[in-house]
Amino acid sequence: MDFKEKFESVAKKNNSLVCVGLDVDLEQYPVFFSSKEPYKAIVEFNQKIIEATKDLVCAYKPNAAFYEAYGVDGYKALKETIKLVPDEIPVILDAKRGDIGNTAAMYAKAGFEELGADAMTVNPYLGEDSVSPFLEYKDKAVVLLVRTSNKSAKEFQDLESNGKPLYRQVAETALTWERKADLCFVVGATYPEEAKAIRELAPEVLFLVPGLGKQGGDVEAAVKSSVDANGLGAMFNSSRGIIYADDPRKACKELWDEINQYR
Amino acid sequence: MDFKEKFESVAKKNNSLVCVGLDVDLEQYPVFFSSKEPYKAIVEFNQKIIEATKDLVCAYKPNAAFYEAYGVDGYKALKETIKLVPDEIPVILDAKRGDIGNTAAMYAKAGFEELGADAMTVNPYLGEDSVSPFLEYKDKAVVLLVRTSNKSAKEFQDLESNGKPLYRQVAETALTWERKADLCFVVGATYPEEAKAIRELAPEVLFLVPGLGKQGGDVEAAVKSSVDANGLGAMFNSSRGIIYADDPRKACKELWDEINQYR
Repeated sequence: MDFKEKFESVAKKNNSLVCVGLDVDLEQYPVFFSSKEPYKAIVEFNQKIIEATKDLVCAYKPNAAFYEAYGVDGYKALKETIKLVPDEIPVILDAKRGDIGNTAAMYAKAGFEELGADAMTVNPYLGEDSVSPFLEYKDKAVVLLVRTSNKSAKEFQDLESNGKPLYRQVAETALTWERKADLCFVVGATYPEEAKAIRELAPEVLFLVPGLGKQGGDVEAAVKSSVDANGLGAMFNSSRGIIYADDPRKACKELWDEINQYR
Repeated sequence: MDFKEKFESVAKKNNSLVCVGLDVDLEQYPVFFSSKEPYKAIVEFNQKIIEATKDLVCAYKPNAAFYEAYGVDGYKALKETIKLVPDEIPVILDAKRGDIGNTAAMYAKAGFEELGADAMTVNPYLGEDSVSPFLEYKDKAVVLLVRTSNKSAKEFQDLESNGKPLYRQVAETALTWERKADLCFVVGATYPEEAKAIRELAPEVLFLVPGLGKQGGDVEAAVKSSVDANGLGAMFNSSRGIIYADDPRKACKELWDEINQYR
């Protein structure tokens, strides 16, 4: 089963387009974590989140930065966290890697073989030969940064050439690459107009949509601009809004409800 | 002492603009490594390279990918490798990170605090707010990808807007950012014309120049296009060409000679 099939299978089973971002920050939980080693604290925390949400999600997305910040312990906790996710639910390693060919192959080995992720986010700035080593893995997917959710996204991604902003040029060019079937796109919830344009350009590409919740993306606008013709085709990520909530299951269920209302 | 001062101090002491890329790939050394654990094998290998070259270099550059590919052991080996470099020699962690603000801060913490690097390579695609968390570290530097050394670099980096290719727009825009004093630029040796244009635009910015040796960059063209008015201002990286050589010290000395001939 390839990544998209795995996503669709669990998205239908859980009737969900919610992706939960597993970005634990120990400094947010001084009481919970004070008596524990970072490895144990991170794994226990993620285990609780996964248990509380696994019937409400279509994917989990740990961001490598939050683990690397705890060094070797964090790296171990990342590997264990990916193992804790039930096999039927895809794991996107949000790593935003991008390097030249032989080095990109090492990053792909790290994410897909060492850590066991089903997909990885990849930065397009270096072009096709920096992405293709990730695409060589059968049944794994690349989630290419097209339009990111942050404010400064505009700085370079909106630069126009040939009458088109860079983010659009990235999407169009990527669709000409070999093995494009294993490509997904990152399209920030904070830019629904841009999302709509990319959806028209790429009706069948699976989107990862970050930027809901704390980052200010509007759920209705994000859902309406990003889902495909079947009301599928997009994974809406929330990290802090769910995992830092007093009741993560309740917060996840609320987002689940709100997304499903607009699909 | 900030990064640039540290670089200049050792570049003058060793009369060197050679940066050695510590990108060990165990598969290249089956005999040497077969009887050892990855952690031990990587650290021993790097220790030999550092011992053999430390009076001939201006910097070392481990690429995170080659360590991450060995999982937890690799991550530990990366931390130990950075510790093995003499204090007077700057270490550039080649990680090409790029993420939104709060996540970028975690990557900066990982590279500068957990691993102890003096500088990190950062990807510009997400814009200023993805770079500034790295620049907030006093005495540390950001080496921004401007023009990468790979073939597909052209795909997006050459797209013209406002009559300028993207890589130039990235360089010009970055020079308007706050704390630009701590910025260095990646400019591939495989594109000397582009390097010359960026040098004219940014006469005082320190360049990291990858792409010599196996990647095909010509030393004379790279040096003449990239050094500053004082014959300094650039770090020329070689990884495979030195560390995989039968005699790494000899290979390093040859590159040292060739670069110094054209400065």
